[in-house]
Amino acid sequence: MDIKVNFDRLKKDIESLSQIGRDPQGGITRPSFSKADLEARDWLKGRIESSGLALGEDGAGNIFGRKEGKGKTIMAGSHIDTVINGGMFDGSIGVLSALECLRRIKEENIPHSKPLEVASFTDEEGNLSGDFLGSRAFTGLLDQEILEKGLTQFGVPLAEILEGTNFTIQSIMEAHEQRPDIEAFIEIHIEQGPVLETENKTIGIVDGIAGKHYRWCSFAGKASHAGTTPLELRQDAFLGLADFALKSTQHVATEHYGSMVTIGRVSVRPGAFSIVPGQVDFSFEFRSQSKKTLEELKKHLFSLAEDVASTRGLEFGSKLVDETEPVSIPARIQDIMKDECENLGYSSMTLPSGAGHDVQILASVAEPGMIFIPCVDGISHSPQEMIQWEDLEKGANLLLQVLIRLAS
Amino acid sequence: MDIKVNFDRLKKDIESLSQIGRDPQGGITRPSFSKADLEARDWLKGRIESSGLALGEDGAGNIFGRKEGKGKTIMAGSHIDTVINGGMFDGSIGVLSALECLRRIKEENIPHSKPLEVASFTDEEGNLSGDFLGSRAFTGLLDQEILEKGLTQFGVPLAEILEGTNFTIQSIMEAHEQRPDIEAFIEIHIEQGPVLETENKTIGIVDGIAGKHYRWCSFAGKASHAGTTPLELRQDAFLGLADFALKSTQHVATEHYGSMVTIGRVSVRPGAFSIVPGQVDFSFEFRSQSKKTLEELKKHLFSLAEDVASTRGLEFGSKLVDETEPVSIPARIQDIMKDECENLGYSSMTLPSGAGHDVQILASVAEPGMIFIPCVDGISHSPQEMIQWEDLEKGANLLLQVLIRLAS
Repeated sequence: MDIKVNFDRLKKDIESLSQIGRDPQGGITRPSFSKADLEARDWLKGRIESSGLALGEDGAGNIFGRKEGKGKTIMAGSHIDTVINGGMFDGSIGVLSALECLRRIKEENIPHSKPLEVASFTDEEGNLSGDFLGSRAFTGLLDQEILEKGLTQFGVPLAEILEGTNFTIQSIMEAHEQRPDIEAFIEIHIEQGPVLETENKTIGIVDGIAGKHYRWCSFAGKASHAGTTPLELRQDAFLGLADFALKSTQHVATEHYGSMVTIGRVSVRPGAFSIVPGQVDFSFEFRSQSKKTLEELKKHLFSLAEDVASTRGLEFGSKLVDETEPVSIPARIQDIMKDECENLGYSSMTLPSGAGHDVQILASVAEPGMIFIPCVDGISHSPQEMIQWEDLEKGANLLLQVLIRLAS
Repeated sequence: MDIKVNFDRLKKDIESLSQIGRDPQGGITRPSFSKADLEARDWLKGRIESSGLALGEDGAGNIFGRKEGKGKTIMAGSHIDTVINGGMFDGSIGVLSALECLRRIKEENIPHSKPLEVASFTDEEGNLSGDFLGSRAFTGLLDQEILEKGLTQFGVPLAEILEGTNFTIQSIMEAHEQRPDIEAFIEIHIEQGPVLETENKTIGIVDGIAGKHYRWCSFAGKASHAGTTPLELRQDAFLGLADFALKSTQHVATEHYGSMVTIGRVSVRPGAFSIVPGQVDFSFEFRSQSKKTLEELKKHLFSLAEDVASTRGLEFGSKLVDETEPVSIPARIQDIMKDECENLGYSSMTLPSGAGHDVQILASVAEPGMIFIPCVDGISHSPQEMIQWEDLEKGANLLLQVLIRLAS
């Protein structure tokens, strides 16, 4: 169908939203239910209403704009919250592109039988209680005890953050009761990685979303004087971590190409120039598209850590932080995307998503689909996050065609 | 000569001094010119005076107790300052054993021709301005600009610490002008390492003191998303450090047995679970008894760091923090110690000192000699620092015989 998004309007929306929550470091700091986020919510609700869509909001603060139809809903969206000092595209383009698609369908009176809905989910970035608070609430996947007992990353309980809003832990827990039947949920997002740019493709058709395993780990050895403890008598916890970091990376790189392993946080104690490290605490995460690979990695990597520890006279310890299952994107959704890319003449490739997104939570209640556009240098979660606007225009036009086809 | 120290008195002195500067964590916090240190100085001066020795103090706050004689002075001593939350033996036993030896020589009217002197040097632990402030002042090895412009580890300039004492930067700089001619300086100290205990020996006769090279280093790569950046496209600064840590340790262990290399402080940035580290800053030090080895390590290890960086798409940077030359103990001093150990029937071994001590600074103006006694589990700079008292008794008796022989 020869219809395109109004890209000037979409771009203006993205730029307007990016003015809300600007921080002194030039990024955007707009965690859910912050003052900036409340302002952004009001702005988004105004944009939905002025588009003539039916505005909705559930008990978790998820915001919807609906165009009625018959049967199961075709939904698209993402989130408008950000990490601390984040960028202007992560999440926002998914919500605002979906809104633009629905506006164009309405303006042009494009026929569709099924209901169409744009969704903006609360706290995708996990500032309040692990990732995906809003989409987990929407799908009924939350644990009330964690919401009540856990601390937000701001060091206070969630209930305190909710004071002065219309939301409570109870209303969040009940949010899923208001959910319509959903046939498919489509999210457009920046890739947040370098693959599309490296391969010089405009559109990424996501074929699966990685499952992940987050663990907080430690090696304990013995702190000792760096001038007087011979190398062969040391129990250097840091060298244990160095050994484990290289061996685990080597294993994933050679045995499970495409899977990821990362040590991002490291704390070495006592942390003095002339003291052999007695303890090292570190974050350890791995991700894979394949459930089987995740299982193999769980077994192999932690047994590798034990081997390193026993060879070096150290103790290895670890605690699970979070775990999610991989999600496959159905062939039907991928095929529609490929088809429409060809019709539109856009270059595309299929690729997995290593990052987590709301769509992986929605996969428990709907067919998931995901479109990536490139981001410059793969940079995200940073004020330097940037896109080529023409890539977004193409991505939004693809989303429009996919939604029309799914809702027809 | 059949004379022994009064060990009950020595032990009581060590226990009395250890009551000054007790901290809530059960250790001793007595940095030079702190309130606790000023109290300890007064206590030490009282002990010197009541022994009938001539009390002296120079412009750097180094404290002396002298028994006159003819010719060059035979000196023994160490320091009474401590690290933050340190132990009760490091330094103190060197000062108080020397004091006990001079007391016994005086009490028994042991004949000696040369002057004998006990010395307690200011700020050996380097809380105020690098290590060995007092012994460097005594030997004329200080840089006035560093004293004036540098910060103490308490975050304030040295001049501020000196307010309310009798000392100034000027008086510290002039301290060496009052120094007598010294023939030999002997220090008894805990080993601060595990070798004597492992080898089951009571006395360590030190044959050399390691030179060291301290550097603050970094690898810079590129922070990126841990879920979306394929392993082969990462510039992970932490993996660079892991690689360098293992390779540099391997090189020292296999090519320069007995030398040391240590990475004790590590800071990984940005330091988040799901972000590939873009930068890692770390301390890097190595030590050796051999000047030639130190030169080889300087060349080899930093070129190794550059290799690791270039293989992994990182930048390596570094800045010199401190550097000292190795010191050899003259055969004459070692032979006297071996001889006297045999006479006394004490088990001994020669070994190098990996840690730095005042004696290595005194080596620029006197023949240096050093006696080690074991410390339990090699632990030092900690409230857990412990000795077997009978080892100290033997060490002090050896010191007594060595001083009598050198001064005869």
